Amino acid sequence: MLVVQKYGGSSVADAERIRRVARRVAGVRSEGHSIVVVVSAMGDTTDDLINLVKEITNSPPEREMDMILSTGEQVSIALLAMAIKETGVPAISLTGVQVGIMTDNAHTKARILEVRTDRLKKELDAGNIVIVAGFQGVDDANDITTLGRGGSDTTAVALAVALKADLCEIYTDVDGVYTADPRIEPNAAKLDVVFYNEMLELANLGAVVLHPRSVELAMQYSIPLHVRSSFNHNLGTIVKEVDSMERSLVVTGVAYDLNVAKIGLYDVFDKPGIAYKLFKSLADNKINVDMIIQSATRDERNDISFTCSRDDLHKALSVVQEILPEIGASGMTSNDNVAKVSIVGAGMVSNPGVAAMMFGALAEEGINLEMISTSEIKTSCVIEEGEAKRAIQILHDKFNLAKETDS
Amino acid sequence: MLVVQKYGGSSVADAERIRRVARRVAGVRSEGHSIVVVVSAMGDTTDDLINLVKEITNSPPEREMDMILSTGEQVSIALLAMAIKETGVPAISLTGVQVGIMTDNAHTKARILEVRTDRLKKELDAGNIVIVAGFQGVDDANDITTLGRGGSDTTAVALAVALKADLCEIYTDVDGVYTADPRIEPNAAKLDVVFYNEMLELANLGAVVLHPRSVELAMQYSIPLHVRSSFNHNLGTIVKEVDSMERSLVVTGVAYDLNVAKIGLYDVFDKPGIAYKLFKSLADNKINVDMIIQSATRDERNDISFTCSRDDLHKALSVVQEILPEIGASGMTSNDNVAKVSIVGAGMVSNPGVAAMMFGALAEEGINLEMISTSEIKTSCVIEEGEAKRAIQILHDKFNLAKETDS
Repeated sequence: MLVVQKYGGSSVADAERIRRVARRVAGVRSEGHSIVVVVSAMGDTTDDLINLVKEITNSPPEREMDMILSTGEQVSIALLAMAIKETGVPAISLTGVQVGIMTDNAHTKARILEVRTDRLKKELDAGNIVIVAGFQGVDDANDITTLGRGGSDTTAVALAVALKADLCEIYTDVDGVYTADPRIEPNAAKLDVVFYNEMLELANLGAVVLHPRSVELAMQYSIPLHVRSSFNHNLGTIVKEVDSMERSLVVTGVAYDLNVAKIGLYDVFDKPGIAYKLFKSLADNKINVDMIIQSATRDERNDISFTCSRDDLHKALSVVQEILPEIGASGMTSNDNVAKVSIVGAGMVSNPGVAAMMFGALAEEGINLEMISTSEIKTSCVIEEGEAKRAIQILHDKFNLAKETDS
Repeated sequence: MLVVQKYGGSSVADAERIRRVARRVAGVRSEGHSIVVVVSAMGDTTDDLINLVKEITNSPPEREMDMILSTGEQVSIALLAMAIKETGVPAISLTGVQVGIMTDNAHTKARILEVRTDRLKKELDAGNIVIVAGFQGVDDANDITTLGRGGSDTTAVALAVALKADLCEIYTDVDGVYTADPRIEPNAAKLDVVFYNEMLELANLGAVVLHPRSVELAMQYSIPLHVRSSFNHNLGTIVKEVDSMERSLVVTGVAYDLNVAKIGLYDVFDKPGIAYKLFKSLADNKINVDMIIQSATRDERNDISFTCSRDDLHKALSVVQEILPEIGASGMTSNDNVAKVSIVGAGMVSNPGVAAMMFGALAEEGINLEMISTSEIKTSCVIEEGEAKRAIQILHDKFNLAKETDS
């Protein structure tokens, strides 16, 4: 069997943890499997490098940023290869360049175009455990690129796809995917199975166990993922295709996102092209808009509200300020004391009334909904930030997501 | 004019120093020159990485060692490129792999076979200051190699050779090459000119301003080197070919080496093949022997003494112990409280009696010579370690090397 395993930064944060990963990998090997291991940078290495850069410049060229950030994984792959060899098992480390993880040239957020397999196969055939640097690739000018935060997950799935691996395991510091963030909802239950589209929504909604792009890629090539802890041998969560033969939970999990800011515009002209003008200007300034609500008022005027990330709020306000006269708005407000809470579940599409249950449960507890957005498998509400934690607990309870107890 | 500059680890040890190097480089550029800059790892980075490795294993695989060590320069080139761009001058960093610094596969001590110039020339033609990672290269299997301690000097000279540079400047934390170590001899004078062969002897004798291999390479291709300080704009020392038109100092400098141990063997058989057997065994165990003395005693027996580095003493003793019966030695002694002091000068070859002057000066002051070794341009003596400092001062004085004072 060919297994691809990915270990995150917390799993290789120090020498002792690296040795633990080495023993685990060597153990899988002793069962006769071939293994490719993808590793992130150790612990806080990436942040340390970013701080070093900040001492030099506030606007680092992205190509040079990739040059420096990619060293983090290069250190961890070499150390892990050494630790595995120390257990008596042959191992070799490879950078993204050496593997041939070909990407576009969008430095700091590159996308993988192709994974070459010659070197990987040669080293596997030679009996090596192959340790690959996550998060990094190389463009056609032979320049080092990085895939953005969480990119090591994507590296692992891309390698599993290219090598037609039998199994892709994502090791992290939690036991798997939970029905809610266990730090907020102590009764959150570990899910045995999550479908790709649910995982994708959860990942995008702030349940940051897996990087959304890695889930997309796994879904596209139907590669099942096993999300599990590197600190124990418990089974984790399998992320896989929707299987209609299985009983699906109506609601699989509850997620929240605090990195939300809301902007409201009053009395915008009600005529074609106004929304286009507004959101085109925001897009041109690389501001990602999440939820949008438009409501008719009086006198052929509309109110338009939208959300973006808090990091982008300042930039968004200045973009909107500039086009305020053009779109005829009489005023503007903003609020970054809001949060987004969401319920996610592949069963929602065939169970009408789930969204209504959510609204009802929150209303009963006096939580005001400022904005609402729905898709086939999720419903999100923007509420006051201070209510987010309570909302999660209410919804977790309402949809019976708590783990079963022996009592 | 095309200039190659090399900055050592102490010149780029922190953000402030990196900015200073950036300003200096941008200044040279503003005079209309093309520049390739070779950089070492920041300050103690290499030692920090080695300590990280020691937490994992005491016998790291050399290929993985190169994988991890090469990250040090990758960080410093990216930071320097950022700092230069911050001054408004275009710059790009390149790893050894990206340049195409092709080496053999002797990991941790690789030798450069070829420097490809396509990428370098392309970036220079595009108007970039090109920042190259020192100390590293790539072998024909596309694996990262390193050139050994001090290898960045060799990188700089190799780039100067390949690009047919007009000037190769080696920036360091001292003002140039001195007649003696200024920490020992306060009157040591900076030399304006040193010949390659003198520099080679000085470098090999412990005056560690330049890496010996870089001097060899510069000599082979007649590339003049300018060794100078990155902390001021003083002219440093020019290292160049012997020029018979110039008055050469008989003795150019005085050097010392404390990393010396001596082994003595008594009553070795006086027959052919004995010395071969002894020194072949040591070579097979990768022990570098420096000085060798053989003296006939009585009964067709010889005494043989030799020196090696202190790091190798333990290994050398066990190698010799093993073949002691074979070579017929009656006993063995060792001493690591010795030092080597040397005088170096291209003028010695045409000035008989210089070595005798050295012996006389030391004898007058009661310093006992335990071993002597001479070449055309240097004479070395092994003495008691405790006398080394005094010996340097005596010889510096004897050969009138002190800097001229105004008084």
